[in-house]
Parts: sequence; structure tokens; C-alpha cells
Amino acid sequence: MKSIRVSIVGGSGYTGGELLRILLGHPFVEVVQVTSERYAGKFVQSVHPNLRRLSSLQFVSSEGLEMCDLLFLCLPHGVSMKRMDVYRKMASRIIDLSGDFRLKNQEDYETWYGHEHSHPELLKEFVYGIPEIHREDMRSAHLISSAGCLATSAILAMYPLFREGVVEERVVVDAKVGSSATGNKPSLATHHAERSRTVRSYAPSMHRHTAEMEQELSVEEGGPVVSFSPHAIELVRGILSTCHLFLKRKMTEKEIWQIYRKYYGDEPFIRLVKEKMGVYRYPEPKILVGSNFCDIGFEVDPRSNRLIVMAAIDNLMKGAAGQAVQAMNIMIGCDERTGLEFPGLHPV
Amino acid sequence: MKSIRVSIVGGSGYTGGELLRILLGHPFVEVVQVTSERYAGKFVQSVHPNLRRLSSLQFVSSEGLEMCDLLFLCLPHGVSMKRMDVYRKMASRIIDLSGDFRLKNQEDYETWYGHEHSHPELLKEFVYGIPEIHREDMRSAHLISSAGCLATSAILAMYPLFREGVVEERVVVDAKVGSSATGNKPSLATHHAERSRTVRSYAPSMHRHTAEMEQELSVEEGGPVVSFSPHAIELVRGILSTCHLFLKRKMTEKEIWQIYRKYYGDEPFIRLVKEKMGVYRYPEPKILVGSNFCDIGFEVDPRSNRLIVMAAIDNLMKGAAGQAVQAMNIMIGCDERTGLEFPGLHPV
Amino acid sequence: MKSIRVSIVGGSGYTGGELLRILLGHPFVEVVQVTSERYAGKFVQSVHPNLRRLSSLQFVSSEGLEMCDLLFLCLPHGVSMKRMDVYRKMASRIIDLSGDFRLKNQEDYETWYGHEHSHPELLKEFVYGIPEIHREDMRSAHLISSAGCLATSAILAMYPLFREGVVEERVVVDAKVGSSATGNKPSLATHHAERSRTVRSYAPSMHRHTAEMEQELSVEEGGPVVSFSPHAIELVRGILSTCHLFLKRKMTEKEIWQIYRKYYGDEPFIRLVKEKMGVYRYPEPKILVGSNFCDIGFEVDPRSNRLIVMAAIDNLMKGAAGQAVQAMNIMIGCDERTGLEFPGLHPV
Amino acid sequence: MKSIRVSIVGGSGYTGGELLRILLGHPFVEVVQVTSERYAGKFVQSVHPNLRRLSSLQFVSSEGLEMCDLLFLCLPHGVSMKRMDVYRKMASRIIDLSGDFRLKNQEDYETWYGHEHSHPELLKEFVYGIPEIHREDMRSAHLISSAGCLATSAILAMYPLFREGVVEERVVVDAKVGSSATGNKPSLATHHAERSRTVRSYAPSMHRHTAEMEQELSVEEGGPVVSFSPHAIELVRGILSTCHLFLKRKMTEKEIWQIYRKYYGDEPFIRLVKEKMGVYRYPEPKILVGSNFCDIGFEVDPRSNRLIVMAAIDNLMKGAAGQAVQAMNIMIGCDERTGLEFPGLHPV
Repeated sequence: MKSIRVSIVGGSGYTGGELLRILLGHPFVEVVQVTSERYAGKFVQSVHPNLRRLSSLQFVSSEGLEMCDLLFLCLPHGVSMKRMDVYRKMASRIIDLSGDFRLKNQEDYETWYGHEHSHPELLKEFVYGIPEIHREDMRSAHLISSAGCLATSAILAMYPLFREGVVEERVVVDAKVGSSATGNKPSLATHHAERSRTVRSYAPSMHRHTAEMEQELSVEEGGPVVSFSPHAIELVRGILSTCHLFLKRKMTEKEIWQIYRKYYGDEPFIRLVKEKMGVYRYPEPKILVGSNFCDIGFEVDPRSNRLIVMAAIDNLMKGAAGQAVQAMNIMIGCDERTGLEFPGLHPV
Repeated sequence: MKSIRVSIVGGSGYTGGELLRILLGHPFVEVVQVTSERYAGKFVQSVHPNLRRLSSLQFVSSEGLEMCDLLFLCLPHGVSMKRMDVYRKMASRIIDLSGDFRLKNQEDYETWYGHEHSHPELLKEFVYGIPEIHREDMRSAHLISSAGCLATSAILAMYPLFREGVVEERVVVDAKVGSSATGNKPSLATHHAERSRTVRSYAPSMHRHTAEMEQELSVEEGGPVVSFSPHAIELVRGILSTCHLFLKRKMTEKEIWQIYRKYYGDEPFIRLVKEKMGVYRYPEPKILVGSNFCDIGFEVDPRSNRLIVMAAIDNLMKGAAGQAVQAMNIMIGCDERTGLEFPGLHPV
Repeated sequence: MKSIRVSIVGGSGYTGGELLRILLGHPFVEVVQVTSERYAGKFVQSVHPNLRRLSSLQFVSSEGLEMCDLLFLCLPHGVSMKRMDVYRKMASRIIDLSGDFRLKNQEDYETWYGHEHSHPELLKEFVYGIPEIHREDMRSAHLISSAGCLATSAILAMYPLFREGVVEERVVVDAKVGSSATGNKPSLATHHAERSRTVRSYAPSMHRHTAEMEQELSVEEGGPVVSFSPHAIELVRGILSTCHLFLKRKMTEKEIWQIYRKYYGDEPFIRLVKEKMGVYRYPEPKILVGSNFCDIGFEVDPRSNRLIVMAAIDNLMKGAAGQAVQAMNIMIGCDERTGLEFPGLHPV
Repeated sequence: MKSIRVSIVGGSGYTGGELLRILLGHPFVEVVQVTSERYAGKFVQSVHPNLRRLSSLQFVSSEGLEMCDLLFLCLPHGVSMKRMDVYRKMASRIIDLSGDFRLKNQEDYETWYGHEHSHPELLKEFVYGIPEIHREDMRSAHLISSAGCLATSAILAMYPLFREGVVEERVVVDAKVGSSATGNKPSLATHHAERSRTVRSYAPSMHRHTAEMEQELSVEEGGPVVSFSPHAIELVRGILSTCHLFLKRKMTEKEIWQIYRKYYGDEPFIRLVKEKMGVYRYPEPKILVGSNFCDIGFEVDPRSNRLIVMAAIDNLMKGAAGQAVQAMNIMIGCDERTGLEFPGLHPV
């Protein structure tokens, strides 16, 4: 297979660095350019020390960006929206990792992001970036909007249940997330002595990723109202989303297994985890560090007819860079797992 | 005020050690004996290294236990139940820190603990050990059953709301808890390389503390069905319980404040925490390490009429030893805060 | 005993916050003012959340500073040097927690701090702030310069050995330190995702505290050359300094014990820790969090005639605020332990 | 290249699991059997949850071990010594990861391990398992004894210096190590609440790996006396060894660079790390998690003529399984990096 020429816009952050790590090991990709205004002229390893020896690339200013086959945009929210016209001229395929094109409904940007969308006409051209849901659209897509990390875990956890219509509309999603999800800009909130061992309810309501969850989990006949509360905990990489759902009718474990197998049985990056014994009986982000897996497990609480579904991911992998590469692989027609073979470590 | 003579039965565990630390600094208490079968004859500091220089006590076997004024029982579940007759002869006042006398309804032991209660006739003699709810009964009590750590946080978080009848019966409580809550018996699940940085859903349903929550939150006209799921996270001391409730009617923040102030306005160990700015806007167990505070905060989600209430405690303090001493202070009639003045540290 | 009126200049940092916590519980101190330019007008609890309920003080600008009995200065290095004339007019007693008056030799400021000292004439008026070494001078002192946190641990570890002349002059001190020692100013180096689980040799040579060590460990007939290398590790509070020394002659464990007992046998805040069994056989900062103890232990390596001495402290307590209050207690003539009774926690 | 058939004896521990992870992804290896007495009959993923989906292997009892091309032995110290005759009949090539064949001198086993060696005649047949030192011998070796994790880091850090004879014989090595180095057997010392955030000097003198360091660093005209003190810190994977050496004569940074380049300039798994700016100026185990790199850096302290050399590795990779696979690659004649391409993560 012929290599494609790929560039990363905004490559000095954690997502950009992770993308670069994956793409440098990808057999069908040549990384052409990585932009950073702040670090232009510096070697990528000066910011991403794990890439020492692996790359002699230097950051370039975005002004020096050249034509290529595919662009990954790792920009702060609100930026790619404004410059999308420019980027579309640089590459026929774009994967945007910001939130700028995730929502289909332009009013949602006002509700959840607090501002109008500057190019609402583009919203429908973007495919929402979860391959397990939009794989077919991705095959012919030119524009993909990568999903939010917290949204990815919650959507994958609950998607089969809403498609099958077996759960009530009111769901509670309580997520636990590591510090790398916040990016690499220092602040008092992320200062080690403050952030270490925190159990911080930083956005108990109205978190932006709620909008993506409701959008993607809606089916024709209605959709969920997601009560979403994320918590920052002592962790660098990783998300566990615990979804508290209520079954419309009594269901056995086996019936629920069947639903998940129907939707995810052939998925290369989804594992159903539900063991009777051992320390790792349910999904656990700890063992997913560096991997693109989304582990999903569940338990039924017969007393209250509650169904607890847990989904674990590495927020920089399946929650960002890994999933974006998975989408790219679908776009270019290679095996979806290419470059994403790392299985995670134990212990770590 | 005259000192009382106090002994601790089962003093080599984390709760026993914490009790000992508090009581050694308590002006109205003389610690007479601390029992441990395993460490009998050894100095308490050999197990509790923070007590070096503070005490020259040696553990004694329970066979050597002598009469005293008040006994704290820090025994594994199921043990104090069987020996209660013996202990009642040793001291007129007993505070039991196990789960053996927490539930009023003997059938609940079969449901939640999987075995019959051997002395159901004693269940009603015990006062459930949360002073904020049962203070008056404690003043004249001879037997107190200290509350579970996870239960304490969730009950204190929601008690005013159920008393006022403003929330729906179906509640989801998603808790995050440190490793000290499991005690000091090593296992693979608590082995550092496995337990470190875990986000482990270890009992998604049917956790025993659920029974205490439902018991204490019930009011005459009915009570909640608590959907409780605790998670072990990277933390040694601390619990954050996030309670997801749904309001029966629209309520303003101010109305909810008023309810909490009504119940907790004069409580010495409850602080209402809800700031508009800063890193510590909501309750955070991190700053409660070593303190007896229960910090409670909330947020209203107007979209879904959800009320999110967070409660933070140190599981060994307000969740165990601290609350037991608070109860003792009420029993003996001294200022409830005696011996419990440590405010917690920042940063830590 | 009559209370003294104390103010803290620069009270929004970690050391200032810890001082405030201790002094609010000190029976002979009235905290009059706490300054902060940045937070002037705000309640102290907005920055130090562990002080909620404990104090209704508000920060004042340093321009509003009033006369008092004793001033603690918690300013960045280089600041108290310049303003000392002003502060001396505000209070007859000053304890400076910066490095500005620690070194007796003005040339040392050029060597270790890279700039001249603006008021070298004052250097000799300050007593170096380790009570175990300078207690007598402190009793009548008006000016005390609190010791560096890393310096305190290393000096206390080795002082008796150099006084007794039993070790060679060349010593290696390898220290491990938590993130709170860096203060509360965010940077990429202290950003949680970067600082978490680091093992960072951040100043392998020429660390400023080396100068204090050599100064305080010198005896008439010469002094050590300290090879000092600190490492930032995953920890918020705590220092362990491992001192690798070589004995001039073979010595037994008992002889070394005797030396330490001679110097520290009556010290209220020094514990000699050397156990044959258990998890805590040597000094461990973990159990000192919040306490003012310096735990010292050692081991002899007969093969190489090496003596390994370990000293553990809480850097914000014995390494800063706690030791400063200990010095104040000596200055004002009360029991040295007043306000510093907290023994530390286990586990934590 | 044709695959070789490989089995792992003792595959339920951390080293065995890491070996298995690497070998499952190795293009020239077929993993035939993995033994475990305790888990015989269970799937490998029941113990190594990161291998879910990657392998359907089940543990077999060692009695069921079959002939193969190469055996990795991951047994407790003292076991492979006794059974080596058996294993040599099972495979023509053996890589032993225990300490049983690391030392060339049989008396050293009495000194450092406290017991006689049961098969001293075999000691000389084993090649000590650091490829950077013994690569040529490995090419034709049938028996390799993998090096200790702490020893690997210290030896690689200092080897060029002793070969060139530029440093004094007395060296201090102060190491910091994560909990996975202790293996997966639970104990109070490794119980999370005790082990978390420890800074534990667990073997200040006479650590067994000292013997390996002195053996491998010796040159004809004499060798070092290594004063080695490891510390357990809050970390799961990783070692930083800080070596404090003294130069025989003044040397410039450039001269020292030249020495390291001479020995390691072409090494695939050694990186020289010494940056003037940034957070990662020196070696840091944090970014090596999962990688086989040994990062080495240094600093000269002109005051004391000290040379500080830091070496960082992942103890389960370059310190155990990774280095063993590197040795295997040399034995079988494939590219040394095969299967060991993972570069490490940032942040993590």
C-alpha cells in the first residue's frame, strides 16, 4: 500500500504528541509537517521527550504549512472553525480533533459552547468520529470531527442499549478522568500539589460533552436526557465512565450480553469485560494506557432494575489520537488496527 | 471534667490506630488497654508508627481485657455480634465500629450480609452512630453502632432532602474511595502495583452500605431506593460521594441552601461548600485528611431537574474513628469537638 | 501566659498557609494580619480551603501592615533583604522564612544565589533557624532566618557526626522531595501530567541549600564538602535525605547510637528510628505529614565503612512553618511544642 | 526468517507477563507454552488482563512442559539453579531471569545470597545478560543470565567510566524504584495504603545487586567499591539510579560526552539525555514506561570534582523482560530491536 502524506496542525499539545507517536510507527503514513507557533524551529522531541531518536522533525509555523493528503487539526476549540476554509485547500481530507464540528445542530453551540458557530453550513459535512457508529460514512468521508474523550466512553457504553430501546431515557453518567485530558497548559487547578489526589467535581452539570452524548444516542423515536458529571481524579491517562441506567423491563444478564455482542462482537477495539473472579472483573483504564481499546462491562442490580455499564478508555488514545487514526485508517482503506497494535501494560 | 477510662478492642487495624491517635490527645480520656491477638505484647508504635513517642502502651490479648468505662470495638464484621454479652460486662458504654448493629431490621442482615443475625434482640438497643441525626438519643445511650464510612457520606449528603420531601425516591450514589477503607490485610487487590491508579468498580450493585443509607434516609411516608456504586481510586484516605437526585419540583439554589442551613447550620463538623471561584469550589476529600469534617456541596442542573450533591469525608475520621469519638463526646457530655480539632492540611 | 500579636507577610503561599493553620491553633498567639498583594480583600479560606470555618481573616495589602509583636516573612527570595528596614520598624521580632539571611558569608550569596547581598551588615544579626543547633541564641534573638527545607533534613542528619569528628569530609546527600516544596506558582514543570510520578533530578549540582549545609556542619577544624543532589518524586509533602558518609574508623552501631543520643536524646522533635522489623524500619516522610518531627535513622555498611543516615521531615512543617513556630516558641519562652502537637497520620 | 518456538517457565508473575506481551507481538517467535503451577488450566488473560483478545493460551503445569527452541525462566531465586539440568534437556537455549547465574564467583553467592550455589560448575557457562557489554558472547551463547533491574541501570550508567579509568573506585549509587520490581506477591510492605507515597530506604546496605555491579564494572587493574542504597518510591514501573562518582582529574563536559559516545554511540537502546532547557533535561523513567530504552545523562559538579550520572529504565523492560528479548534477538540473529519498538508515552 502506498503511503499518504500527513501533517499535524497544532502538534505541541498532548493530543498532537500522541498522534505523532502513532503516525511515526504507521507503515502507510509519512508525517510531513507538524505545526506549532510557540515551538516553531524546535525539534519535536524537545516537547515530546518520548520521541527522542524516533524523529528528526522540527515544528513549523502554521504559515509554512504545505499541501498534503490528510490534515489532523489539534487546535483549541473555536480555532479550526474559523480557519477551515484555509485547511480545506491544503488537504482533501481533514480530521478535526476539536469540538468545533461535533454537533450537528448549530443552536447546540450556543447552548453548550456559549457562542454562535461561525460556519454552520459545514456542520453537516462532517462525520462524527466514532467508527463503531459511523464507519460506513467514514469510508467516503473527507471531513471527520473526532469525538470528545468523555463522550466517546459514554456513547460506546450506552449506544447498543438505546438502539435496542431497552432503557429509560433518564440516565446518569458519572465519569472519572485523568489530568492529561485537560491539556498541557499549566494553571493552579492542574498544579501538582493541588491536582494530586484530588477527587474534584469540576463540572457537575452542563459539561459540553453532554451534547455529543445526547446527539449520538438519540434514535428516531426519541433520545436520552443525560445527567453527566465528570470528576478529576489522581490519574494522568484514563477515563472510566459509569453509566447508571434503568431497564424498561426485567432483563437477564444473558440478554444484555446478546445486545452488546450484536453491536460490538466484531469490533476490533471493543472488549466486553465481565469476569466472575480476579482483580480486573470490570473495565479498568489502568491497563489501557497507550492502547486504543474501549473496554465495556456491566452489572444488573435486580433490586432497582438498574443497569450499571462501565466503559474504560485511554483518553489520549480511544478518546483522541488513537480514535482519529482509527478513522484515518478507515478513510484510506487499510486495516483499522494499523499503528494501533499496542495492547497496554500490566502492571503500570 | 473527670477523665473516663477507655479501652479499644481490636486496635491493630487502621480504625483502631486512628482511634488511639485521637484518644491519646483527648483531655478527658485515659486509654487503658488496646487489644490485639496478633500483636499482643508489642508496643502500639510497632504497628502505628505515627505514635512513636506518644504512647508506651503495649497491645494485650483480649483475654486480658479489664473493666473500664467505655469500650470501642474495632473488630471484623460478625465478631462483636457474638461476643457482645462479654463486652457489656466489661463496660457500661460500648461503641461498636463494625456493621453488626447498624441495621434495625434483622432480615436486612440476611439480605445484605448473607447470614442471620445471632442477637437480633440487641439491634434496637443500639443507636445508629451519626450524631447529626441521632444526637439526642446518643446523650443517654449505652450502645452505639458507628456508621459505615460510605454510608456516612451519602446519608449526610441527602438526609435534609428526604426529610423535606423535595426529591424523588430513586437516587444514584456514585462514590470514590481510598484504599485505607479496605483495612490493612494484604491481598492481590490491594497490592500496590495493582491498586495504584486503579479506577475500580468493585461492587457496582448490592454494596452493604446501601442498607444503611435506605434505613436512615427513610421517613414515615416512604423512603428512597438507593442505587449505590462505589469505586476504588488512587487515594489512601478519603471519600467523595456524588449523589444524583431529581427534584420533585423546580427549586432555586437559594431554596436548597435554606434546607441545608436548616439542618446543618449549627453542626460543628458539617461545612457547606459551594464557591463561585477557585480550585476548591465543591467538597474535596483531599483537604480533609485527618479532619472530622464532612463537607457538603451541590449543583442544580436545570435541564434535567437534577440535583447533584457531593459529600466529602476522611473515611477513617468522620467515616470511622472521628465520628466514633464525636459520639463518645456526646455520651460523656463534653464539647463534641474535643480531640477532633485538627482542620486538615493544604496542600497534601 | 499573655498572647503575642503576630502577622504574616506573604500569606497566600503554601508556607504562609501552613503558618496560619498552626498559629490559629496556638494558645499564645493572636494572628493580627496576613498580607497578600494578589488576594488583598479576600478571605484567607479562599486560598487555604482547609481553614474554612477556622478564620474570618481577610488578606490585606502589605501597605496596610500594622505594628505587631512578631512578624513572619514568607516572601520570595530577594524581597525581604530589600525591605528589612521597613519590617524591623513594624515588629521587634522577625522570623524570615526566605533564604535572604541564612548565609553568614556575604560572598556565598554571589556564589550560590548569583547576586550580591544588598544588606550584608545584617547577616550576622540573624540566628540560623534550626533550634536543635542554635536554641540558646534564639532565646534572646530578635531576628531569625528560618532554614531551608532540604538543608534542615541534611543538617540534622549529619550534625552530631561532624561535631564528633567521626566522618570523612566528603559526603554525598541524595534527597527526595515532594511538589509542595516548589511553592504554588504553576509551570509546565509542576503541571500534574508532567510532575506526576516523576523521578526528576532537577538540580544535580549547585543547589542553593548546599551552602547552608556546609556552613552549619563546619566545625573549627574544617568542614564537609557536601555533594548534594535533590530529586523531585511523586509526593506532595515530604523529604527524605539519604546521607552517604564514610567513617574515619570502624565504629559499632552502638557507638553511633550513643552519638545521636548525646545530641538529640532530649530533643522534642527528633526521633531516632531504626527498627529490626516491620514496614517502617527507617525514617519515612509519609507518616510525618502535618507533624514537626524530624525522624533520623542510619545503617552501617561494614564492607565499605559507609554510614548511611536518613532523615525524614514534612517540608512545610519541620522544613518551614513548623520549625519557624518552634523558633518563635523559644523566642517567647513557651513550651517549644506548643501548637505543634499533631503527630502525623497512619496510613495516609 | 523462520520463527522459533519459545516457552516461558513461571509465566504468572510480572516479568513473565511482560515477556509474554512482547513475544506475542514478536514476528519471529511462536509462544508455545507458559507454565504456572498456581494458575494451570487458566487463560493467561485471567492473570494478565492487558492480554485479553491477544492470546488464547492457557497456563500449563511445569510437568507438562514440552521441548522447544528457547526457554525463558522466570522463577523465584534459588529455583532455576536446582532444576537447570531438567531445563537444559528441554531447550538448547535458555535465558534465566533470576539471580541464580548472574555471579561468576561462587563465593559471592554465600556473601550476597546467604547460601551456597548448588551448581557452581555452571556459573561460567552463562553469559551475563547486558547486551551492551556482552553482545559478542551472546551471539554464540546457549545460556544467558539476565541482569538484575537495579544492576542494569547502575552498570550501564558507569561502565564507560570504569573502562576508561577516569573515576575513583569509591562510588555511591542511590536508586529510586517502583513497586513492580518486588513482584506480585502481596504483603504488608506492598499493601497500597502502606506502599503508596512511601520514600522507603528498604535495604540501605548489602543489596544483592551490588555484587553484579562490582563484577561487571571491574576491569583488569581493579574495580569499584559500590555503595548502593535503593529506595522504594511512589511509582509502579521505573528506576532512576543516581550515581555519585568522583573524577580522578578535572574533565570537561565534552570529554565525558566523548566517552559515552564511544561506548554507546551506536547502541539502539541507549540514549544520552542532557538538555539545557525543558522539563526533561535529564533521564526520567516516567517516559520510558513500556519501552526498552536506558536513558543516561550526567552533570559535573566542579566544586567537588563530582560527576553525577543518572540512568533511567523501565524495570520490567530494560530491567527484565525487554532486555531478555534483546538478548534473545542477538542469540537468534535478528535485528536487536525486533518486538521492542514501543517508544514510551508522554504524558503518562
